Amino acid sequence: MKAITIPEPGGPEALVWADVPDPSPGPDEVLVDVRASAVNRADLLQRQGLYPPPKGAPPYPGLECAGVVSALGSEVTGWEVGQPVCALLGGGGYAERVAVPAGQLLPVPEGVDLAEAAALPEVACTVWSNVVRLARLGSAETLLVHGGGSGIGTFAIQLGAALGATVVTTARAAKHDRLRELGAAHTIDYSTEDFPEATKKATGGRGADVILDIMGGAYLGGNVAALARGGRIVVIGLQGGRRGELDLAALLAKQGSVAATALRSRSAAEKAEIVRGVRDEVWPLIGSGAIRPVVDRRVPMDRAAEAHRVVETNDHLGKILLTVP
Amino acid sequence: MKAITIPEPGGPEALVWADVPDPSPGPDEVLVDVRASAVNRADLLQRQGLYPPPKGAPPYPGLECAGVVSALGSEVTGWEVGQPVCALLGGGGYAERVAVPAGQLLPVPEGVDLAEAAALPEVACTVWSNVVRLARLGSAETLLVHGGGSGIGTFAIQLGAALGATVVTTARAAKHDRLRELGAAHTIDYSTEDFPEATKKATGGRGADVILDIMGGAYLGGNVAALARGGRIVVIGLQGGRRGELDLAALLAKQGSVAATALRSRSAAEKAEIVRGVRDEVWPLIGSGAIRPVVDRRVPMDRAAEAHRVVETNDHLGKILLTVP
Repeated sequence: MKAITIPEPGGPEALVWADVPDPSPGPDEVLVDVRASAVNRADLLQRQGLYPPPKGAPPYPGLECAGVVSALGSEVTGWEVGQPVCALLGGGGYAERVAVPAGQLLPVPEGVDLAEAAALPEVACTVWSNVVRLARLGSAETLLVHGGGSGIGTFAIQLGAALGATVVTTARAAKHDRLRELGAAHTIDYSTEDFPEATKKATGGRGADVILDIMGGAYLGGNVAALARGGRIVVIGLQGGRRGELDLAALLAKQGSVAATALRSRSAAEKAEIVRGVRDEVWPLIGSGAIRPVVDRRVPMDRAAEAHRVVETNDHLGKILLTVP
Repeated sequence: MKAITIPEPGGPEALVWADVPDPSPGPDEVLVDVRASAVNRADLLQRQGLYPPPKGAPPYPGLECAGVVSALGSEVTGWEVGQPVCALLGGGGYAERVAVPAGQLLPVPEGVDLAEAAALPEVACTVWSNVVRLARLGSAETLLVHGGGSGIGTFAIQLGAALGATVVTTARAAKHDRLRELGAAHTIDYSTEDFPEATKKATGGRGADVILDIMGGAYLGGNVAALARGGRIVVIGLQGGRRGELDLAALLAKQGSVAATALRSRSAAEKAEIVRGVRDEVWPLIGSGAIRPVVDRRVPMDRAAEAHRVVETNDHLGKILLTVP
């Protein structure tokens, strides 16, 4: 088969569409003929040699895919050859075929086309596991989503709104209209506004109950300032650096917490548990149309470099699909 | 009545046993004739003018007491005049009488004498609300307790052990034997050992699942290093400063969290909920003898300055009672 390989870490040009051996499914795995994958920021780090795939994962980038089941491991039940599926991957989505632990498969939600379904597993699992399972966002609460225009952001806005929460989001001004259409009640331009102050203003002084953060160190102080009493900060990205000063007295005055999580490094059992939760709690919201995949564009997979360049400029909104040529 | 007043903030000598007006209970309150209170570190801060009592609380120090009900507010049910009780207070325990919201009263546990019961409410509510309710310590998990010789520490060690968890604690070497008797499986001398390394060693490299911390900023980095995958740090004191650098990449690699909480500033409703949980889940463990109040000594309340001096030297083990003369 063909897959995107990384002979030498580097810029987008490091991604090379090349012949590689076909994967074969283990007893608990399903072989998927990939129709599309989608770009995640972690893929850019992997391309630069900064995020090695976890043990046992394929060496090619790609944390999610959609496609058709083409073979079943000996112990797999509940899935059929020929079935359209999407999947959360430890890697290997940028390829014509991938072997996936059966617990990480999801059916294609009603009303979503097969390629578009590749835009869902990573964001759905990341957002649900953090905002619902870990931070337990309540329907009367406020969710602050940083980077509202990203794949994670567009999904988190929709999920928060679908759950009845008030969603506040930071993004470039050019993206605000679209983010309000997706369900954001308040949009903050982080380049011209102080986000803690703007969040306070948007919430009548209370602050955000849950903050989904991708900036890490650079936003830690601001996130504590923007937090409501009893609020929960969940850090899922470190785009603003890994270290920040934590004012524990300020956190204590708010009875607040800071958690940091990653999806990729979790065990297969943990991933399967999250996928099960997403299927039960999130898939119905997609089926009903309350949440839609937000796809910026489709790029043929052999031109993955082009897609990485777009993500690096940060001009896109939602996910970029990589379709198998 | 008499109470400890603080005419001018300062050293232990600032505590003055003086005549003050008697309190009268509001409709939801119970009047308690105090037999004993106990010293908490927050009382030392209040004495120094650094921790003003929350709105509505009496101006005198004292976050807990034991005594006898002497009057009931018009809307109080479930308590009787003459009943021995102990109570969690927003302040005012260093006094002959105190008016307590009924939701903050607890019966004196079986087998505990009335004055000793004053050593329980603050530590039981603090430890249970953080270690059980917030951090959800599991019976197969490891609890690291910093300052194991303190009132909080001696209670946390006993509660952790009673719940089946493995307890690791930091304290001066002179206190280790006694802390092992209370249920600590491993004791760490923080003055000669690196506590993250010693915690790792005590747990076969895993680290602690829950860390109950009183040091704040100074221990933040060490606590993250000592944490197990999926671990929860709960900061309830800032004896080592309010600020520390948080390495979010290290926290993320462990799927960890840092929460900071305080009991005193919570609403009456929240306090009542915690007191209810303690009565249901902790009081039976005291009744059965699995947890005992640990009392270092008894000091007459009019000599509270003496008790504060002992706490400042940190030579005591467990709680210091202040008995009404």
